[in-house]
Amino acid sequence: MPLARISHIAGKPDSYSRSLSKVVHSALIDAFQVPEDDYFQIVTEHARKDGIIGPQNFLGIKHTDELVFVQITCAEGRTLDQKKALYKAISENAARDTGVRQQDVVINLVETAKENWSFGNGDAPFAS
Amino acid sequence: MPLARISHIAGKPDSYSRSLSKVVHSALIDAFQVPEDDYFQIVTEHARKDGIIGPQNFLGIKHTDELVFVQITCAEGRTLDQKKALYKAISENAARDTGVRQQDVVINLVETAKENWSFGNGDAPFAS
Amino acid sequence: MPLARISHIAGKPDSYSRSLSKVVHSALIDAFQVPEDDYFQIVTEHARKDGIIGPQNFLGIKHTDELVFVQITCAEGRTLDQKKALYKAISENAARDTGVRQQDVVINLVETAKENWSFGNGDAPFAS
Repeated sequence: MPLARISHIAGKPDSYSRSLSKVVHSALIDAFQVPEDDYFQIVTEHARKDGIIGPQNFLGIKHTDELVFVQITCAEGRTLDQKKALYKAISENAARDTGVRQQDVVINLVETAKENWSFGNGDAPFAS
Repeated sequence: MPLARISHIAGKPDSYSRSLSKVVHSALIDAFQVPEDDYFQIVTEHARKDGIIGPQNFLGIKHTDELVFVQITCAEGRTLDQKKALYKAISENAARDTGVRQQDVVINLVETAKENWSFGNGDAPFAS
Repeated sequence: MPLARISHIAGKPDSYSRSLSKVVHSALIDAFQVPEDDYFQIVTEHARKDGIIGPQNFLGIKHTDELVFVQITCAEGRTLDQKKALYKAISENAARDTGVRQQDVVINLVETAKENWSFGNGDAPFAS
């Protein structure tokens, strides 16, 4: 049920987008127990000039303009432990598979009611 | 009050974007009773390689890389019946007017407080 | 902790994006008391044809296709007064610094739990 918007800097090889995509999807499977086929993402790249992230140091973490945003809209109800596991899996595996610095992986979850989703045909499969 | 982000595959004629836009707006008017002039959307197209939606089969619905995402941020308070009517209207009318498969229309609502909107001049017209 | 998505029409000079970015960030510092280094944004430009905002008149405010969307995901808990101050600061200062009409600055806040954020290293710094 998640929809992940992944935003990274332009000028990377195609494999970079695809690796980020797979990392996020695998982390959702492992930490949130989403089904394998529940794979909905929009990956976009952004000009460096609009990265808009100056050299900065938020919460003691230095971010560069290679920053990757992962904003995931998903159903409400995951525990804090599940969220922490998700953050760890995404940042560690993104670093391993794409070379991005773990510090540069910024993640945000937007939770919604389950009835707020339709996956085709106008159905509302999770409305109770 | 809704803001709709409509995302579709690149390489379509201009009329495709415009038809999707109108379909979503009309459905919001009919199902959510938004005023005619409450028409706020961002329509974007995405390279096929970043569609990232492999051939998949979620909830028994087969999605292709022609998938259209409609993510609508709106004020809270719509009933389940209104949401179901919205999903039906968007998917049916998108199929009718653009040729997209009904299975490929994925919709998500993000609900917010009414005070969370300003429509110009810095006003907060729906803050009680 | 906010992530601001700023969307404006294409064809503007680079300084336009940058000024909008700074205006939104300064307003968040002043109205929401976010730290100076809490600067996370994605600025995108959109073809005029997909602005999709016809000449319209919502709530007595005339919008043009120069409309700027500022959608900010942030932690919950700001007061109505803080939100009103944010709207005023963004619209007034955007007009002052970029020439956009104050009527054309549309703002939306999406509030989330504090534990829904990771700013690098997979940490969940605001989880209690």
